[in-house]
Amino acid sequence: MQLKAVITAAAPGQRHILDQTLTTHDGKRTRMIEFLLNFVQGVATETAFIIPAGASEAYRPLLNESGQRIVLIEQNHPQGYAHAIFEAREFVGNQPFLHMVGDHFYLAGNQSGGQRNKQPARTLVESLVSIYQQHSCSISAVQPTRESLLPYFGAVGGKAVSTEGPTKLYQIEKVMEKPTPTEAERELWAPGLRQGQYLCFFGMHIFTPAVMGILTELFSTGHPVSSFSQALAILAKRERYLAAVLPGSRIDVGSKYGLLQAQLALGLGGPDREEVLSMLLELAAR
Amino acid sequence: MQLKAVITAAAPGQRHILDQTLTTHDGKRTRMIEFLLNFVQGVATETAFIIPAGASEAYRPLLNESGQRIVLIEQNHPQGYAHAIFEAREFVGNQPFLHMVGDHFYLAGNQSGGQRNKQPARTLVESLVSIYQQHSCSISAVQPTRESLLPYFGAVGGKAVSTEGPTKLYQIEKVMEKPTPTEAERELWAPGLRQGQYLCFFGMHIFTPAVMGILTELFSTGHPVSSFSQALAILAKRERYLAAVLPGSRIDVGSKYGLLQAQLALGLGGPDREEVLSMLLELAAR
Repeated sequence: MQLKAVITAAAPGQRHILDQTLTTHDGKRTRMIEFLLNFVQGVATETAFIIPAGASEAYRPLLNESGQRIVLIEQNHPQGYAHAIFEAREFVGNQPFLHMVGDHFYLAGNQSGGQRNKQPARTLVESLVSIYQQHSCSISAVQPTRESLLPYFGAVGGKAVSTEGPTKLYQIEKVMEKPTPTEAERELWAPGLRQGQYLCFFGMHIFTPAVMGILTELFSTGHPVSSFSQALAILAKRERYLAAVLPGSRIDVGSKYGLLQAQLALGLGGPDREEVLSMLLELAAR
Repeated sequence: MQLKAVITAAAPGQRHILDQTLTTHDGKRTRMIEFLLNFVQGVATETAFIIPAGASEAYRPLLNESGQRIVLIEQNHPQGYAHAIFEAREFVGNQPFLHMVGDHFYLAGNQSGGQRNKQPARTLVESLVSIYQQHSCSISAVQPTRESLLPYFGAVGGKAVSTEGPTKLYQIEKVMEKPTPTEAERELWAPGLRQGQYLCFFGMHIFTPAVMGILTELFSTGHPVSSFSQALAILAKRERYLAAVLPGSRIDVGSKYGLLQAQLALGLGGPDREEVLSMLLELAAR
């Protein structure tokens, strides 16, 4: 199954996805944006990047280099994340679409065992697509996340649909943007999680056309839209909307030590693990 | 004392010093080139960057941003590192000059004790200047380096001048470019080093005008100049030429995990040490 993809990279600090590189184990410096395109390769028929006003020139070389069909959409008036997605309404039309945020780096593999990074992160997108094919409803990938990280993410609560196998599924009943621990404890219950953990967005979603419909309604009221989670909370009331815990993890490369963490995970997950570990020990011991 | 500075960044892979950033503990993303300019600040009256042909446009914004006097010199035909320095001959004229390589990151502080990173790396340049003022001869900063790293550096041997205090000084008798361990063991003796360690270049030098004179001679013969070490070997025969082990360390950010190492060292050396250490442990345990 193939879908159009929408990648949001319109926030002021996100220009760096064009410049920042991570070194893969073959010594190749790969730009963040190439990782993003690699994640959606084989799934996305066409990918729209929502970028800051005036950024097209910097992105344009990508159109030829990547070998993928790419559309650049400038967000002319920065109005936040929900609005950035809304900018893609004509691009996606009345079709389901894959959505990823531009500032996350993904690692496939289970936390237990040595499987980490052996599979390309692209398999995470493929898993999401296959769940979509099975259930034909909107799905957000989520990750059980410690309470202390709630200020950084949207979070969901809901009932278990399937908690067997590598991918746990929940039906979302509640969506909250960056809840406090007290709000989360009261509102965001999800079975099978450890104490103090909540299902937070992973930055990877497949949405039915209803989402663009809800955004159209919200933006036409003239009232400010507080967050994209506001739209998703409405979605959960109107349609069956699932959350999937995929066998992988995400790193917010926009955070202070996010790039460091992504580079470390790449190094430790590959054939240079020994070299990187000894470098770590040497530095930490100083 | 103030000197002109020459920073070489003409190798094909070195354009990244304009793009690559490291995150400092206040969360600021600082470009490699800003670190370089910070290292020479207060010492350099004017800094020449030797850059690849055609790279001036990319470097130009720097001229206004930095607040320092900067000259861009394009190396029109890439002929290696020695030739890149030679490109600065008119810029430095008949004066001593500070030379730094563009792909090293520096950390001040002794390896023993908790002093690391408490002082800005700029103090390393200042130490080199004060040794120059005392001895009035060419000085290369060096770092005792494990045998296994010899393939990456020029190395020197010589006799001790002063091995007391924070800065050990040697008078250089021999300079070799990337010697094999056997060559190094036979030729590069230096007292006071641990077994299997050699004095390798740190990427920071102050040179008398003799160096440009030797380069002029070498390039006028029409024979290829194998390495900058070839010129420095001649320098050691003609003039008193010192090596200084400065209280700090260098990271070759051009190497595979060099940027990772620099970012880790920054993170572990600052107030976020605890946070970075726990991130390391979490990642390493996976």
